Amino acid sequence: MTGFDAALIDLDGTVVHGGSLLAGAGAGVEALREAGLEVLFLTNNPTRSPAGWADHLSELGLPGDADEVLTSAEATVRYLDAHHAGARALPVAGPAVVEQLETADVTFVEDPTAAEVVVAGYHAGFDDEEMTRGLRALLDGATLVGTNRDRWVPTDAGPIPGSGAVINAVAGAAEVDPEAVLGKPSQETVDLAMDRVGAAPGDCLLVGDRLDTDIAMGERAGATTALVLTGAATGSDLEQTDVRPDYVLESLAEVERVLDGDAVDGA
Amino acid sequence: MTGFDAALIDLDGTVVHGGSLLAGAGAGVEALREAGLEVLFLTNNPTRSPAGWADHLSELGLPGDADEVLTSAEATVRYLDAHHAGARALPVAGPAVVEQLETADVTFVEDPTAAEVVVAGYHAGFDDEEMTRGLRALLDGATLVGTNRDRWVPTDAGPIPGSGAVINAVAGAAEVDPEAVLGKPSQETVDLAMDRVGAAPGDCLLVGDRLDTDIAMGERAGATTALVLTGAATGSDLEQTDVRPDYVLESLAEVERVLDGDAVDGA
Repeated sequence: MTGFDAALIDLDGTVVHGGSLLAGAGAGVEALREAGLEVLFLTNNPTRSPAGWADHLSELGLPGDADEVLTSAEATVRYLDAHHAGARALPVAGPAVVEQLETADVTFVEDPTAAEVVVAGYHAGFDDEEMTRGLRALLDGATLVGTNRDRWVPTDAGPIPGSGAVINAVAGAAEVDPEAVLGKPSQETVDLAMDRVGAAPGDCLLVGDRLDTDIAMGERAGATTALVLTGAATGSDLEQTDVRPDYVLESLAEVERVLDGDAVDGA
Repeated sequence: MTGFDAALIDLDGTVVHGGSLLAGAGAGVEALREAGLEVLFLTNNPTRSPAGWADHLSELGLPGDADEVLTSAEATVRYLDAHHAGARALPVAGPAVVEQLETADVTFVEDPTAAEVVVAGYHAGFDDEEMTRGLRALLDGATLVGTNRDRWVPTDAGPIPGSGAVINAVAGAAEVDPEAVLGKPSQETVDLAMDRVGAAPGDCLLVGDRLDTDIAMGERAGATTALVLTGAATGSDLEQTDVRPDYVLESLAEVERVLDGDAVDGA
């Protein structure tokens, strides 16, 4: 008896780093499953599809199902369907994102003057030409929708720009604000995750390595939150923010402390 | 007797558009010269050097001297010399800008971890790789200096991103603010222009097509300002801002109205 129905677990910096599983992360996830929690991996990284993530995690020794992965791209698809059904959309995003967005009820166009929505997310091919296309569409009155807010992400080779950087670049050029940026910490992503696990936020444990996305979202939704120190946030970051995780764990390997109901230590 | 010692005149949208002189602009500049005003062209467009601008204007039938052109790149050189003398600088900018910055007392480097200053400005080669280099330098503690604020600029082929877009993209990725952005409307550019024309702001007439750079700068400095409607700003933009030019002219051809001391009509 843990008091939780489901665990929402971030991937980069929480379960994986670069091409490897973080030490103890596999055991941590297994402990949550064995305790009867529904597990949902919740990632802002749209460079793999849910099936791609499931395959990748299986290869690393953490078998799972595509249904257990919710990406910011999927949240974006749902948003486009709800708010821009039938629209002509200009992608400022890479092939992996566009592939996932292809299930959305939009028609992708390349001509900025034909676009009604600009859908922006990170990709390594971002350049001046793409910024120009996005700029022209936005000056022409198109609406900007972004996949997720992360400005930069750590990689084995060093930090690289994230979707937030690309969205900000295009929005900044045209001097407009995005209509919506999906992924964590957006409410759309909370709603979608709750739908998927069939639980209320108060019955969920959220585990992640970022204070401004993972923990802030869980806190606002009313979930129990656990920060792991294996990724973006360090202990000293905690001193510089109002975001207060319920638990602070060295790594996901320690998640059983939360299930055992150890005293709340992050408050 | 006009009451002015000097005229500070913007180029793009005021004197030239794309590859042409705007109608009446040559006559307007000549009228100012004939009235005894020192003429200084003040441009945020760093894709030509002062000599390149002088040649270009001469070819278009408006002969002049490189000394009559002050670009945002020159203001940036002065800033680097004053605040970052001897520093290692990573350029996130194109060849024309770097060429102009080569007179600054900095050493250009390509390695982000070696950079102490990132100097950013527009160029058509801006891409993810360059944003990554800038991001890594800034996360590593380098300072960001930008050539000018313009987010986008009109061209014959349509709007394209400006230096402000590139500066904002790099600053946004690293979640830092630039230490300084030179060019109009910066105080550094006002000081440099006053030095060059040997006049006080109150004895200058500033003519430009942008409310947020040209007119705002002139107004703040205490110059007399004239907005021309041949470029970025339209009559309806005037209704949406607190920036109040002293005169509103259809084009530079009408500048004699200002010299004749017609009633102030922009207030």
